Amino acid sequence: MTGPLPTGPLPTGPLPTGPLRAERPGEGPREECGVVGVAATTEAAPLAFFALFALQHRGQEAAGIAVSDGQRARLHKDVGLVGTVFTAERMADLTGHWAIGHTRYSTTGASGVRNAQPFLVETRRGPLALAHNGNLVNSPALREGLLDRGFSLTASSDTEVMLLMLAGAAGGTGTAGGAGPAGGAGPAGDDSWAGVLAETMPAWLGAYSVVLLGADEIVAARDPWGFRPLSVGRLRDGGHAIASETCALRTLGATDITEVAPGEIVRARGGTLSRWQVLPPQPTSARCTFEFVYFSRPDSRWDDRSVHLVRQRLGEQLAASAPVAADVVIPVPDSAIPAAVGYSRISGIPFNDGLIKNRYIGRTFIEPTQVLREQGVALKFNTLAENLAGRRVVLIDDSLVRGTTAGRLVALLREAGAIEVHLRITCPPITHACHFGVDMGHADDLISARLGIDELRSLIDCDTLAFLSLAGMMAAVGHATGYCNACFTGHYPIPVTGSGPKDAFERVLR
Amino acid sequence: MTGPLPTGPLPTGPLPTGPLRAERPGEGPREECGVVGVAATTEAAPLAFFALFALQHRGQEAAGIAVSDGQRARLHKDVGLVGTVFTAERMADLTGHWAIGHTRYSTTGASGVRNAQPFLVETRRGPLALAHNGNLVNSPALREGLLDRGFSLTASSDTEVMLLMLAGAAGGTGTAGGAGPAGGAGPAGDDSWAGVLAETMPAWLGAYSVVLLGADEIVAARDPWGFRPLSVGRLRDGGHAIASETCALRTLGATDITEVAPGEIVRARGGTLSRWQVLPPQPTSARCTFEFVYFSRPDSRWDDRSVHLVRQRLGEQLAASAPVAADVVIPVPDSAIPAAVGYSRISGIPFNDGLIKNRYIGRTFIEPTQVLREQGVALKFNTLAENLAGRRVVLIDDSLVRGTTAGRLVALLREAGAIEVHLRITCPPITHACHFGVDMGHADDLISARLGIDELRSLIDCDTLAFLSLAGMMAAVGHATGYCNACFTGHYPIPVTGSGPKDAFERVLR
Amino acid sequence: MTGPLPTGPLPTGPLPTGPLRAERPGEGPREECGVVGVAATTEAAPLAFFALFALQHRGQEAAGIAVSDGQRARLHKDVGLVGTVFTAERMADLTGHWAIGHTRYSTTGASGVRNAQPFLVETRRGPLALAHNGNLVNSPALREGLLDRGFSLTASSDTEVMLLMLAGAAGGTGTAGGAGPAGGAGPAGDDSWAGVLAETMPAWLGAYSVVLLGADEIVAARDPWGFRPLSVGRLRDGGHAIASETCALRTLGATDITEVAPGEIVRARGGTLSRWQVLPPQPTSARCTFEFVYFSRPDSRWDDRSVHLVRQRLGEQLAASAPVAADVVIPVPDSAIPAAVGYSRISGIPFNDGLIKNRYIGRTFIEPTQVLREQGVALKFNTLAENLAGRRVVLIDDSLVRGTTAGRLVALLREAGAIEVHLRITCPPITHACHFGVDMGHADDLISARLGIDELRSLIDCDTLAFLSLAGMMAAVGHATGYCNACFTGHYPIPVTGSGPKDAFERVLR
Amino acid sequence: MTGPLPTGPLPTGPLPTGPLRAERPGEGPREECGVVGVAATTEAAPLAFFALFALQHRGQEAAGIAVSDGQRARLHKDVGLVGTVFTAERMADLTGHWAIGHTRYSTTGASGVRNAQPFLVETRRGPLALAHNGNLVNSPALREGLLDRGFSLTASSDTEVMLLMLAGAAGGTGTAGGAGPAGGAGPAGDDSWAGVLAETMPAWLGAYSVVLLGADEIVAARDPWGFRPLSVGRLRDGGHAIASETCALRTLGATDITEVAPGEIVRARGGTLSRWQVLPPQPTSARCTFEFVYFSRPDSRWDDRSVHLVRQRLGEQLAASAPVAADVVIPVPDSAIPAAVGYSRISGIPFNDGLIKNRYIGRTFIEPTQVLREQGVALKFNTLAENLAGRRVVLIDDSLVRGTTAGRLVALLREAGAIEVHLRITCPPITHACHFGVDMGHADDLISARLGIDELRSLIDCDTLAFLSLAGMMAAVGHATGYCNACFTGHYPIPVTGSGPKDAFERVLR
Repeated sequence: MTGPLPTGPLPTGPLPTGPLRAERPGEGPREECGVVGVAATTEAAPLAFFALFALQHRGQEAAGIAVSDGQRARLHKDVGLVGTVFTAERMADLTGHWAIGHTRYSTTGASGVRNAQPFLVETRRGPLALAHNGNLVNSPALREGLLDRGFSLTASSDTEVMLLMLAGAAGGTGTAGGAGPAGGAGPAGDDSWAGVLAETMPAWLGAYSVVLLGADEIVAARDPWGFRPLSVGRLRDGGHAIASETCALRTLGATDITEVAPGEIVRARGGTLSRWQVLPPQPTSARCTFEFVYFSRPDSRWDDRSVHLVRQRLGEQLAASAPVAADVVIPVPDSAIPAAVGYSRISGIPFNDGLIKNRYIGRTFIEPTQVLREQGVALKFNTLAENLAGRRVVLIDDSLVRGTTAGRLVALLREAGAIEVHLRITCPPITHACHFGVDMGHADDLISARLGIDELRSLIDCDTLAFLSLAGMMAAVGHATGYCNACFTGHYPIPVTGSGPKDAFERVLR
Repeated sequence: MTGPLPTGPLPTGPLPTGPLRAERPGEGPREECGVVGVAATTEAAPLAFFALFALQHRGQEAAGIAVSDGQRARLHKDVGLVGTVFTAERMADLTGHWAIGHTRYSTTGASGVRNAQPFLVETRRGPLALAHNGNLVNSPALREGLLDRGFSLTASSDTEVMLLMLAGAAGGTGTAGGAGPAGGAGPAGDDSWAGVLAETMPAWLGAYSVVLLGADEIVAARDPWGFRPLSVGRLRDGGHAIASETCALRTLGATDITEVAPGEIVRARGGTLSRWQVLPPQPTSARCTFEFVYFSRPDSRWDDRSVHLVRQRLGEQLAASAPVAADVVIPVPDSAIPAAVGYSRISGIPFNDGLIKNRYIGRTFIEPTQVLREQGVALKFNTLAENLAGRRVVLIDDSLVRGTTAGRLVALLREAGAIEVHLRITCPPITHACHFGVDMGHADDLISARLGIDELRSLIDCDTLAFLSLAGMMAAVGHATGYCNACFTGHYPIPVTGSGPKDAFERVLR
Repeated sequence: MTGPLPTGPLPTGPLPTGPLRAERPGEGPREECGVVGVAATTEAAPLAFFALFALQHRGQEAAGIAVSDGQRARLHKDVGLVGTVFTAERMADLTGHWAIGHTRYSTTGASGVRNAQPFLVETRRGPLALAHNGNLVNSPALREGLLDRGFSLTASSDTEVMLLMLAGAAGGTGTAGGAGPAGGAGPAGDDSWAGVLAETMPAWLGAYSVVLLGADEIVAARDPWGFRPLSVGRLRDGGHAIASETCALRTLGATDITEVAPGEIVRARGGTLSRWQVLPPQPTSARCTFEFVYFSRPDSRWDDRSVHLVRQRLGEQLAASAPVAADVVIPVPDSAIPAAVGYSRISGIPFNDGLIKNRYIGRTFIEPTQVLREQGVALKFNTLAENLAGRRVVLIDDSLVRGTTAGRLVALLREAGAIEVHLRITCPPITHACHFGVDMGHADDLISARLGIDELRSLIDCDTLAFLSLAGMMAAVGHATGYCNACFTGHYPIPVTGSGPKDAFERVLR
Repeated sequence: MTGPLPTGPLPTGPLPTGPLRAERPGEGPREECGVVGVAATTEAAPLAFFALFALQHRGQEAAGIAVSDGQRARLHKDVGLVGTVFTAERMADLTGHWAIGHTRYSTTGASGVRNAQPFLVETRRGPLALAHNGNLVNSPALREGLLDRGFSLTASSDTEVMLLMLAGAAGGTGTAGGAGPAGGAGPAGDDSWAGVLAETMPAWLGAYSVVLLGADEIVAARDPWGFRPLSVGRLRDGGHAIASETCALRTLGATDITEVAPGEIVRARGGTLSRWQVLPPQPTSARCTFEFVYFSRPDSRWDDRSVHLVRQRLGEQLAASAPVAADVVIPVPDSAIPAAVGYSRISGIPFNDGLIKNRYIGRTFIEPTQVLREQGVALKFNTLAENLAGRRVVLIDDSLVRGTTAGRLVALLREAGAIEVHLRITCPPITHACHFGVDMGHADDLISARLGIDELRSLIDCDTLAFLSLAGMMAAVGHATGYCNACFTGHYPIPVTGSGPKDAFERVLR
C-alpha cells in the first residue's frame, strides 16, 4: 500500500483568467467520455465495439479502439459515431485478444482527430495504449513537468499527459512525475503496467476512470474519490470486460459485475482478474450525482443502485416536495421520463406524453437560422396538443443549465393550448462549473448562478418553478454522503485553484 | 372532372411466381418513403431539409432534394441519413423558392443511389422532378408500355415510370399511357404540371402520394384510395408546404394544415394554393391502418385523428379485450409506449419501463455473430431487472411480423426475473403481404400466416398471447370503414394479380 | 445499303447568339473523349480499364466502364482519373465478357458526374450502354425531336440523345428520329443493335466515334466523314477490342489492327467480328488534322501514318519553310519534342532541352495568385539556363490558341539569358472554332482570329514568329485532301448554322 | 564551434539479420523525400505548397505542411499527391508567415499516415515541427536511448527520433542524447532552435537534410557529409526559402540561391538569414552521385553543376567508352533522355524516340495480371516501330537495379523490329544497398551484385551491354572525389554495422 495521498496544497501559479473551457454551442451538460477494456479468449475488438455502441451516449464526436495480439498493437480512431468509424473492413484489421476503446464528446472542432482516444505509443516496456474518462485538476502542472523533462506533446488532452507519465515511469532511468513513486506498495514487483500505474497514480489529482492496453493485458483504475463510474465483469467464454457503465457489460452478456473501487487497480490477463487497492479510498468518496440525474443510461447500475429507479425516486421526491394542482405530468424526453412516471405515481396526476423528440437530432450540423426559428421552424420537439390543450401541465426536466431550452419548451406547451405550465427540475440549481469531467460550461453560462428562483420563473415564463433540494436528491439516491455535489454547492472535493486553463496547449498548437 | 376511373380488369399476363419483393434482412415492417414539397418566398431547400429531418423515420437509406429557381432545376441525392447527405456546402448550391425532397428505405444495396429520389429530367415543358411514396400495382404493365413506346429506363422504381409518363404526356405528340387522357376535366387548360398530372393519374393503379417540382410550382397528388398520408399547410411567411406527415409541416411552423384528399391535386405557385378533385374518391377509401399502428410519428395527425391518441386507445381496447392478472405493463420501445400507457390506464396495472433500447441502433452494419449472440451479446435491448424480477409482466408490442424479435424479448424478460410474460399485440395477426407501399416481406415471411395463436404462443414461449381484433383496432381508430386492412384480411382494395415481379428490371441491369 | 445521306439544309432556327460552349480556364485545345469497347473470352472490364489508361490523355475529368455478363449490365463511372475511379473493389463488381469504357474532358464542374459516360439504360431489347467521342452539329434539333416525342433527358450531352434515339428506335412502335429508318440496308434483319444503329445513323450529322454495349455484343461505328479516329483489333486470346487510338489496342497486345472506316459499323460477338459499310463514306472525308498536330499519342497510328513521324515531318517542313539562324532548337514539352527533333535534323541547329515541365501539373486546383506570379512563382515550367544563356533559340510549339502561354515562355527564355527567341508553330493560325469535338473555345478566344502575324509577334514579344502553312502541314501528313482543316480555314465540312447553343439544356437543369 | 565529431565505433549490438528495410514492389531506386521551409512576409503555406509541387518527384506517397503564425502552429498531412492532399479549403486553415513541408515515398502501406511528415509537437520552448530527408545509421541506438529515458514513440521514422531529441534537449533539465552537448560553439546562446539543433547534431550519424519550424523561424541543417542536397534562396518580396532542390526554389522565383553547406545550420527569421558552420565538414564530403544519375530534376543544380548537363555528359562519356555501330539512339524516358542526346552527339548516331511512356503510370494500383501480361497487356511503354524496325538500336537507361524492366524493354524493341539492341547504362553496376536515404532494396535485390556482365547480358537478352565506369561517371560529374559511391563500391562513408533493423518499431506497433 502506498503512503498517504498528496492532499497538501497544489502547485501555485496564476489563477486562470480565461474561461475554464471553450464554450459549447449545445445547451445541456454532457459527459465527456466512455471507456471500455476487453481481455478475451476470442477476438477482442468486436466486443469492444459492441460495448462502445452501448456507451455512445457518453460521447458522439469521436471513437477509437486499440488492440494487441500479445506482441504488437494497432489503433484505429476517427471523428464520428461508433458505427461510422468502424466499418467491417476496419474491424478486420483489429486482431488480438486485448482491446480498449473510447467514445468521446468534445467542444473543439479542428482538434477533433488529434484529441481522439485511445492514444497508443511504443515504450521501453512495449506497446501501451490508454483511454480515459475524467479530468485531472493538476494536469497543467503535470504538463509543465513533462515539458521540463524534455517530453513533447501533440495534443491538449489529459490522456496524453497520463500516457507519457506512464511511459516515462517505465523508462529505465526516469521517474513518474513530480510526486514521489509508490515504493513497494500495491502490485509492486509486478512486471505488468499495473505496477507502473500504481507508482504513477499518486501524482494524479482529479477524476479518472482509465483503461490501459499492454501487449497482453488490460489494466484499469479509478481515482480514489471515485468520481466517475467504472465496472468490471466476467465474459461468458472466459476473459473479462471493463466499462464505464454496466449497461455496456450487460450488452456483452457479462456476469459477476462489480465496481472498480475508488483507488483500485484491476488487471485482466490470461483469464485471471487481479485487483489491488493501491490508493486508500478518500475518507469521503465523491461520486458524481449527475451520473444519476442525467448522464448514465437508465439500464446501468452504480453504487448498487439502478439509475432508472433513482430517477423514478427523484420524481417521487419532487412530487412530495413541490406538489401542484394539475391535469397532466409531461416529461422532457428522454431522460426525464422515469422521473415523470414517479411524479405521477406520488401526485396521482396522470402521466402522458406531450413533447415528441426527433430521434435523429444531433445527426445534422445544419440548424434553423434565427429567421427560420422566428417563423416557427423547430427541429427538436413537436407537441401533442391533444394531451395539452386546456390542461394544467406539470413539466418535468432533469436539470436546468442555461435556461434557453426550458423557455422554448414552455412557450411550445402554451402554444399547444396548455393553460398552466409548472416546471419541476429533478435536481437543485446548478451554480458552479464542474472540474471533474462534465462539460457544463463555465460559471457565466449557468443561469442559476446569476438568477434567483423568481427571476428564473419569470425568464422561463412558467407559472411555477421548483427544484428538487439537495437533501431530496440525495434521498432519492439513497445516500446522504459520498457524492460530489460541487456543481450545486461549490464545495469541490479537491481544491481547483491550480487547475489552470486547459487550453494552454491551444496557445501553442492550433 | 375526369370520366370514371379504369376499374376494369388489369392487363393480363403470367402470374408472378417469385417473391413480390426481395426479402429484407430486418424483422419488422417498415414504411418506404417520406415526401415533401415547398413553395416559399425564401430559400426552399432548407425548409425541405428540416421537413425531411422530421420524416427521417419513414426512410433512412437515402435522401434527396431537388430545387428550382424559377427557370432551372438542380438535384442532390445520395445514400445516407438526411443530416449526412446534406452538408452546409451542398445546401448552398440548392438555391430557389421551390423544392421537393424525399427520404427512402430500400432493401437493395447496390442499386441504392440509382433508385434514390427525387428524379429530375428536362422535358418539353421544362424541368420536372418527382418524389413518390407508395406502390403502383400496375407498374410492370406501365413499364412495358413505356418500353414499347421506345422509352428507356435507368432504375427499377415506380418513380421513374411515373416521371417518364408525365414527361411523355407533356411532349407535343405523345399521350399519357395506356389509359385515355383526361380531356378537359380537372385543371385542364392549365399551363402547369397539374394538367398533365390530371391526364396521367387515371393510368396509375395503386398507392401514391406524389410531389412534383416544376420550374416555378409545386404540384402534389394522392391516389383516389388515399392509401398513404399527404397533407398541406401554409408557411408563416407566405408560401406552402406539402408533406407525408403533419409532424413535418409542424416542424416548419406551418398552419392551416389539411389533408390532400384522395384523388385530389394541389398546386402551390405564386403564394396561392389551388386544389382540384381530379379523380372521384373511391366509394370506400383505403387508408393504411398500419400508419396508425406503427409507421407515423406519434405527433402526426391523419384523418383528423392524433396518432398518439389512437395508439393509446389501441392499448385501451387491448386491455378491455385481453385482460390478464399482472404486476406491470411494459412496452417494447418506442412505438408501443402510448399503447402500454393506455393498457395500464384501463387495466389499472402500473406502467413501467422494462426494456431499454439503444438509441443508436441502426447506425451500424456490424452485428453480433451467432457465436457472440450465444454468449449473450445483445445490441438492441437491455432489461431493467428492478422492474421485472418476480413480476408478472404484460408486454405490449405494436405488431408481430416474423416473431423472432418477440421470442428474444420474452427470453430477455424471463432472464431478468419475470415470472410470467403476457404478450399483447395492438393489431390483428398480419397474414398477407402489402402491395401498397409497406415492405413487410412476402407471405412466407409472415409468421401469423402459417401458425395459429397457440402455436405462436408456444414458439414465442410467452404465458399468454393476444392480438387486438380488427373491430377493436378500428374502434381505436374511430372509423369502421375507409381503411385498407389487407395485410390482416387479404381483402385487397385493388386486385393485385397483375402486379408482377418488381425486380424484372434487375434482370436487365445490375 | 441505305439511301443517300440527308445533306440538305438543317432545321432552321435562331442563330446562336451566346458562346458556343462555356469558356474553359485552360489555354490549349483539348480533345473531349476517348472510347473503348471489348468483347473478350475472359473478363472484359480489366481490358477496358487498361485501354482507358492508355487513353487518359484524351480526357482526365471523368471515367466510366459498363459491362454485361450476357444478360445483365452494370455501370460504374465517376469524376477523376481512370486510376482513381476504378479501385480493385470496384473492378470486382464489373464482371462479364463485354465492356465499353469512356474517358472524358469537360469544361463544366458541377455537371461532371451527370454527363460522365457511358450511359446505360434498359430498353425494349434489353440493356444498352453507349460511349461517344465527337460532337453532333444537329443535336439541338435531335433534342427537340426527342422532347417533342415526350422523351425526357437528364444530361446535356450528345451521348444521351444518341442513346435515347437508339432505344426509341428499338421500341416496338417508335421510329428512330426525324430521318426515316434505314430500311433493309446494312445489317438489316440483324437481331443485334447493329441493325438499330444502321437505321439511326442517318439522322446524326457531325462527328461521332461511338461504341455500344448490348447484352452480349459490342457494336461500334464512325461517322461517314471520319472526323475522329476509331480502330479495331484482335485480342490474343480471342475476342476483339475497339478503341479511339491504336496505342490503346497495342497496350492490350492486340494484333490485326485496322481502322473502323467512315460510315462503317463493326460488331464483335461470339469471337466473330462483323463489318457493314452502312453509310457511304463522304466523297471527301474529314479527318481531324489536329489529331496529328496535338491530340493523339505519338505511339498511335491513324490513316496508316505514325503520329510520331508526322510530328517529326511537321518540324522538318517548318525548318524548310521558316528557317532562321540560331544556336539551339528547344521544344515546348511534351507534344512539340518530335517536331523539334525534325526541325533540328533539317536545319542542322542542335536540338536540346530548355524547358522542364512539372510532370504533375494538372493534378492541382490551387494555382499561383496574380501576386505570387508577379513574384516569380511559376508552377508549370522551369528553364535550363545552361542551354539558353547567350543563345539564339528556336522555340517549337505545336499550336497557338490564346497566345498567353507562348508569351510567358518567351519571357522565361529571355530571363534565362536567351538573346533571341524565334517561335515556330507546327500548324497554321487557328482562326475558327471547332464544332466536331475539340474544345478550343469559341472564336473570341482564338488570338489568331483577331491579330495578324506582326501583331502576334509583338504581343508574344518574340524576335520572329512563323506558322507552318496549310500545304506544309498537309505535306507532313502526306495527304492533300480528306482532312478537316476548318479551324484553320473556316471551311466546315458540314454546315453548322443549326448547331445552336449546346448549353440550352443548362438553361433548364443546373 | 563544437568539438570533434564522434567518429569512433558506434554502439555495438546484434547485427541485423533480417532485411534492412521491407522490400518494395517497384523495381527502380527511388529517393525518399523532399523538404521545404519558407519564412515569408506573406502567407507561407502557398509557397510551401508550390515548392512541394516541384519536389513531387521525390515522394508521391504522402505530403504535409506545418505552419506557424508567430505563436501557434498547425499541421496538415495525409497520404496522396501534393495536389490531392491540399485543397483550397485546407490551405485556408494554414495561415502564418512560417511553413515547412514534406513529400514522402515509402514502402509501407498501413503505416502511411502515421509516418507522414512533418511531425509537430509542443515543447518547453513552444511549437516545433520537423521534416527530414535522409537516413540516420544510428537511429536504432538513438531510439533505444529515448526509450531508456522514458520517452514514448508513435512512429517508426527517424524524423520522430530527431524531433524528440530536439524537444528533449530544449527541456530545462534534459540533455540532447548520448553525445555531449555542443557547448558554446555555433549559435550557442542563441534563443532559437538553431542552438538546440547545434547541440544535438553531433549525435546524429548519417544523412540528413532537415528543416525545422519554430514559432517564428525556420531552421535547417545538413549533415557534415553532405549526402543529400539542400539549398536556400531569397524570395523576391523578402523572406527566404529552403528546399531539397533548386528547382523548387526557382519555382518560387527565388534568387541568390546557395547550398546549405555540409555541417551548416541556416536560420531564417525576421527577413534575415543567419548561417553557422556548426560541425566541421567531413574531410571528404559524401554527396550522393545518384542524385545526378537519377533522382534530381534536370532543372536543378547541385554542387554548382546542372543536373541536365551532367546527364548529357554521362551520355557523352558512355559514347566515348562504349561505342557501337548502330542506326539510332533511343532513351528510356524520361530520365535517360539527356544522356541519349549526349550519346548521339558524340557517336554521331541519330537520336530518336522509340519508347512512349504512359504519363499517368503510377496513378493506379491495378496492374495487369500475369495472364494478361502474357497476352501482351503492357501498361507502361509502347514502342514506335517506325523508328525501330530494321534498325540497330542503342538503348540508353540511367541505371540497372533489378534487371526486370531492362529485359522487358529489350523484348519490346525486338518485337517492334529492332535487329540489334545495345544496352548502355549511365552509371556503374549497383552492387550494394544504400543506407543514406535511397530505397534500392537490400543487396539480394540488386542483380549486379549477383551476376557478371556476361550473365547480365544473357539474362537481359541484349546484343551488347555496357556500364559507364566509376571514373567516367565522375568525369561527367566533374569531380573525382567528395561523392558517396557506396552503392557502386561498397565503401560506405560511415560504418553501417550498427544500423540495425529499421522495423524494430513494427515489432511493437502495427
